Amino acid sequence: MNTPQAVVLLSGGLDSATAAAQAQADGYGAIALSCRYGQRHSRELEAAGAIAQHLKITQHFIIDVNLGQWGGSSLTDAATPLAQDGSDTASIPATYVPGRNTVFIALALSLAEAQGATAIYLGINAVDYSGYPDCRPDYLATYQQLAALSSRVGVEGQPIQLVAPLVMDSKVDIVRRAVQLGVPIPLTWSCYAGGDAPCGRCDSCRIRDQALITAGYPQWATPNLAPTV
Amino acid sequence: MNTPQAVVLLSGGLDSATAAAQAQADGYGAIALSCRYGQRHSRELEAAGAIAQHLKITQHFIIDVNLGQWGGSSLTDAATPLAQDGSDTASIPATYVPGRNTVFIALALSLAEAQGATAIYLGINAVDYSGYPDCRPDYLATYQQLAALSSRVGVEGQPIQLVAPLVMDSKVDIVRRAVQLGVPIPLTWSCYAGGDAPCGRCDSCRIRDQALITAGYPQWATPNLAPTV
Repeated sequence: MNTPQAVVLLSGGLDSATAAAQAQADGYGAIALSCRYGQRHSRELEAAGAIAQHLKITQHFIIDVNLGQWGGSSLTDAATPLAQDGSDTASIPATYVPGRNTVFIALALSLAEAQGATAIYLGINAVDYSGYPDCRPDYLATYQQLAALSSRVGVEGQPIQLVAPLVMDSKVDIVRRAVQLGVPIPLTWSCYAGGDAPCGRCDSCRIRDQALITAGYPQWATPNLAPTV
Repeated sequence: MNTPQAVVLLSGGLDSATAAAQAQADGYGAIALSCRYGQRHSRELEAAGAIAQHLKITQHFIIDVNLGQWGGSSLTDAATPLAQDGSDTASIPATYVPGRNTVFIALALSLAEAQGATAIYLGINAVDYSGYPDCRPDYLATYQQLAALSSRVGVEGQPIQLVAPLVMDSKVDIVRRAVQLGVPIPLTWSCYAGGDAPCGRCDSCRIRDQALITAGYPQWATPNLAPTV
């Protein structure tokens, strides 16, 4: 019997790496998909490659889809400053990229259908849920309906399943799960900025570092982490 | 008061050109979006540019999103022959590109949100409906729900509206509407193959040519149209 295949959206961050390892632990052969969407730096794509190699994922697709060309986010627009030290207090952060998850999941559906994969693993989680509209459980449930209606396999057989194993996890839960699954945490890259080392100041670094410390792995936190209150 | 803006997915074919003209007739400023998705030829993108120019659309985005890299369709895979003369009788044609409309609409949502457009016009129609799963009204209705959940504007205000003015039209209806709206039909390109002139034999040419003749415009049909039964 053939091993079932799952597409994993691998950004290079901790969450997507954990989702990839979870797919393997659940018995799937993982096909990685990373998107060059106009992000400020290529550091996270390099991380995705290193993680795929570590997890022995042999098929890793990288697709260009330059959402940055029409602007709308501080993550793709170099003219918009990144928030630091928790100053981005809007209900939806400036780092939100319009439609990004909708585009990425659509690409994963296309790849899954073309390659005969039966599931898509997503690193979407509860921390993002608080700010990004396209990380919520009702969003995913609606996308699952769309997946069933949109594809040849959905019409003719079983729809491709969207699996978001971390969706209700806290960042500390994710760190613990990552360790259990053997995720190479030091290879993952979560910082919004580029450079040789994570900045330790952007929202993504702050949430990650706090979780690593709380979970008992301060050695993996950014060296220049600001003291916690 | 500012003119409301609508993103139009402009493939270069008759249907999307008609949808673009309809958006303008409905009072929208049109922002065109075309996708280089790995199709066999660039002829339809050239047509999209010519149509945009004719319709005085000043913003025309072209995005690379190479769905052809993972295969799955005769439209992107040069090794798979194109069906001719109606021989493609499968319930879903081999020219179906997995997830294509799902990806294109996701990209349009991203562009619309980034640019502040309030609607997306789609040339999806009832002829495609018969074979392609991602052209059906229930698919569009579900995507509308997703659009409301996925975006900053959907969460904080009015969701972006998906408008498919041709969805229940026959091809003959579309030709008549195109003529009424002043669509430059000879500039549009519907043929699945490339080349200087349409082949007149692929499914897309056959449906278009038959409709042009029925609507009373045989001068726009492919010269080498096969005699109809």
